[in-house]
Amino acid sequence: MKLASLKEGGRDGTLVVVSRDLTHAVRAAPIAPTLQAALEDWVTVEPELKSLYRLLNEGHLSGAVALEPAKLAAPLPRAYQFLDGSAYLNHVELVRRARGAELPPSYYDDPLMYQAVSDGFLGPTDDILAASTDWGIDFEAELTVVLDDVPMGIKTAAAGRHIKLFMLVNDVSLRGLIPAELAKGFGFVVGKPRSALSPVAVTADEFGDAWDGEKLHLPLTVQLNGKKFGSPDVGVDCNFTFARLIEHAAQSRPLAAGTIIGSGTVSNKDSSVGFCCLAEQRTIETIETGKPKTPFMSFGDRVRIEMLDKAGHSIFGAIDQKVVKYAGPPA
Amino acid sequence: MKLASLKEGGRDGTLVVVSRDLTHAVRAAPIAPTLQAALEDWVTVEPELKSLYRLLNEGHLSGAVALEPAKLAAPLPRAYQFLDGSAYLNHVELVRRARGAELPPSYYDDPLMYQAVSDGFLGPTDDILAASTDWGIDFEAELTVVLDDVPMGIKTAAAGRHIKLFMLVNDVSLRGLIPAELAKGFGFVVGKPRSALSPVAVTADEFGDAWDGEKLHLPLTVQLNGKKFGSPDVGVDCNFTFARLIEHAAQSRPLAAGTIIGSGTVSNKDSSVGFCCLAEQRTIETIETGKPKTPFMSFGDRVRIEMLDKAGHSIFGAIDQKVVKYAGPPA
Repeated sequence: MKLASLKEGGRDGTLVVVSRDLTHAVRAAPIAPTLQAALEDWVTVEPELKSLYRLLNEGHLSGAVALEPAKLAAPLPRAYQFLDGSAYLNHVELVRRARGAELPPSYYDDPLMYQAVSDGFLGPTDDILAASTDWGIDFEAELTVVLDDVPMGIKTAAAGRHIKLFMLVNDVSLRGLIPAELAKGFGFVVGKPRSALSPVAVTADEFGDAWDGEKLHLPLTVQLNGKKFGSPDVGVDCNFTFARLIEHAAQSRPLAAGTIIGSGTVSNKDSSVGFCCLAEQRTIETIETGKPKTPFMSFGDRVRIEMLDKAGHSIFGAIDQKVVKYAGPPA
Repeated sequence: MKLASLKEGGRDGTLVVVSRDLTHAVRAAPIAPTLQAALEDWVTVEPELKSLYRLLNEGHLSGAVALEPAKLAAPLPRAYQFLDGSAYLNHVELVRRARGAELPPSYYDDPLMYQAVSDGFLGPTDDILAASTDWGIDFEAELTVVLDDVPMGIKTAAAGRHIKLFMLVNDVSLRGLIPAELAKGFGFVVGKPRSALSPVAVTADEFGDAWDGEKLHLPLTVQLNGKKFGSPDVGVDCNFTFARLIEHAAQSRPLAAGTIIGSGTVSNKDSSVGFCCLAEQRTIETIETGKPKTPFMSFGDRVRIEMLDKAGHSIFGAIDQKVVKYAGPPA
């Protein structure tokens, strides 16, 4: 099943069911007005949404309309929680190496995770606004999961059943602001502004056998200004499953329905597949030539993030964003 | 004006207007069903709520009922964002000294702030659940503000007008888990579980001249197991105004209506007034005698956090919580 939110009807948008081929959509009301509302009552709502999805794919719904990507908000236009993990330690190691920092051995047992901004997500084609390119504007392509209510203290073996949906995210990162902020020791506030989510959120069955119940085995593709930048495989060099990340997040508190858990930037040790962020490319260049060659993003640059299934069809639709200079707050 | 949320009507509770003396309440519907909804439309809703508040205080409302603290959820039972600052550098300096860490000079210009958990807040009398006292259970008494929509890039001079409400918070801290987590460099996930909010949220006019437009000049009182533990003044040794904290938070992104900004643990350099967390008391003991004497909280311990006005009346009602052993997740 594929779900999205139209940019209408309020801050949480309007929930629509989207056809498997991403061409059509139908409003989900009165089953659920918003995706957040659906997640809060998933056991009841999911079978009804799935029935609607089946009818939509069979072409039996007179209320279906053509899907217009520009009218889509993020599937969750805002959320009560976004916890971003670092399941790909190769990314962490490369980015830290660029800062001259080491990766402690404990990182291989104890997942790295931070509390990320969730009060607003950019829609899949919304601009990335920045006041200055001195901020070091970078993208980070990740896979995320969306949860129903998770009790405190849950263990990995039981955590997977709380994964209800998957989305892609562009976790926009301001490399020029991050070092000073991380040096303060309290994580990210200014260095990681709002992220963009993929056009649709999907259930695991949309992956077919590419989802093995713990990991997804498909490449995540990034294009920069229309040219391929990377397509690392999400199932390769992944140090932590989502279920393990959920155990970590819920150690000392429950997680509310609608919580988003991010994989961290997808990264393969085989650098020939390319990268899911500019920082890794720059680190490889620094290692090879002594300094980075690839610049961070400039105003007007575009990044496109997508995942194709084995038959070449887009699963989530594309995140496709342009960097635009922010004019400043109203006077 | 004083506002609260009853534990009924769904995950966001039911908004009530509370009398100035905290004895009576009246449902705010149809003006606004929840506090989050009110904050999203504050310009329209505030005058209507204030009219209801005036009638309630004058005893003219037949629908008013006695206020029962045990039926109160947090004013915002969940929020899209909680950013906790560290406006009292004396607290930061003491806690770091206990860890053997120094306070960099830049901390006096650039506010320390972390993205905190907001997917659920404990009600004012809800238990603090912990699996083990090895977690080092501590309280932190703070003042918070609640914002309407704040544009990205706002400056301090314009930021104060976005402060709509004030609340107290008990920012529960797990001192046994924090050092290892902070060593990973990405802030708090497991070391800071859900916080409790005060019974009511109030507008600035409730402070009278104790609010000077930038800082609040009243003591915040903490009792541990019925005995006074501290009452530092919120207006003393406060290094950053809320307006400055908002400028910091909004540097690279807007802040959505309902965002909560925390002051950080209130702390005065004059240690004779006592403390708003156990960690400071323990640090002073370590400095004076070589080791801490005061233990962290045990199961059954209670903490009470309150603020009285100059006439001795409670402004927010009391946060009054017991520490209880968590039985574990359902099988």
